[in-house]
Amino acid sequence: MPHTTAGLTINENADPDVARDILTGLARLVPVTGNHRHAEGNSDAHIKASLMGFSLRVPVIEGRLALGTWRGISFCEFDGARHRQVLVGITGGLSLPSSEPFRWGMRSQGGVGIREPPPHNGFSG
Amino acid sequence: MPHTTAGLTINENADPDVARDILTGLARLVPVTGNHRHAEGNSDAHIKASLMGFSLRVPVIEGRLALGTWRGISFCEFDGARHRQVLVGITGGLSLPSSEPFRWGMRSQGGVGIREPPPHNGFSG
Amino acid sequence: MPHTTAGLTINENADPDVARDILTGLARLVPVTGNHRHAEGNSDAHIKASLMGFSLRVPVIEGRLALGTWRGISFCEFDGARHRQVLVGITGGLSLPSSEPFRWGMRSQGGVGIREPPPHNGFSG
Repeated sequence: MPHTTAGLTINENADPDVARDILTGLARLVPVTGNHRHAEGNSDAHIKASLMGFSLRVPVIEGRLALGTWRGISFCEFDGARHRQVLVGITGGLSLPSSEPFRWGMRSQGGVGIREPPPHNGFSG
Repeated sequence: MPHTTAGLTINENADPDVARDILTGLARLVPVTGNHRHAEGNSDAHIKASLMGFSLRVPVIEGRLALGTWRGISFCEFDGARHRQVLVGITGGLSLPSSEPFRWGMRSQGGVGIREPPPHNGFSG
Repeated sequence: MPHTTAGLTINENADPDVARDILTGLARLVPVTGNHRHAEGNSDAHIKASLMGFSLRVPVIEGRLALGTWRGISFCEFDGARHRQVLVGITGGLSLPSSEPFRWGMRSQGGVGIREPPPHNGFSG
């Protein structure tokens, strides 16, 4: 996505309040009238865009985006409305016998830093 | 990028104040003297690096990085100066007839959560 | 990673305090009881997940993940414990004569926005 004041993310697409809460949360993190030097007055949009990022990767399984049950791709406009452009590419996973990526099921624990799956890992949503 | 206290992002490269504003914004978000337990005293750098991320993907169109008009790749040093290393790879997009990714033009609306392009979408920067 | 309240990041895996500090830092950034509208009460988890992101890319060099000396992949559970799923794929880098990505050594400077490597760049960790 070749812009600097918009980003891309993935999140829940079922309840539109999730998108609103993300915008509210980002606005709280990066206020418009911060201690910014960039003269165009949209530094908050630049910062929010870098926080979200500018590209996404979604596996394709049996011809469909493997987004998960509740998820949608969100184009995050932080300085619009404007005409924007999104580049979409498809990359082959040649080293695998099929196009389906390996699914690794796990039971999460609260926190950051889990590296090993539990001994009896199942495939769950 | 095989480090834990530096990150990568893309943003405006025309006005250097944008980079300064991103650093200022991140420093405001993650103060150096927070409630950190990591003994090296650089937990802020670890957090900022995870917020920015450690890898980028930029489409290559006709042999050039399709960065966009004003954009540059930024190596974000949060705990330096140090000697750092960046790994660069090229991945082929074999499923497409040409190496050019599909361009999807849209007119953005403010907010997060736009999934569908407008009916008359054009290709704009 | 097909979820909306968990993310993926990479960071230091040697000192577990780094992971704790990241969680503490994110909790400070996005409080649980913010001005959230999503009725499930876990908007903080959605926001944190989008800040970390949902996919990672790690180069494979000589059959091993090129993570770096101190790094580990972290599954970031922000609304658990739950059963979770991670999709893993392998993408070939066909345009290169070997599977090893190009290593670009540099000496960092503090700040964001470095585009050019220094003239005498070495390969350092």
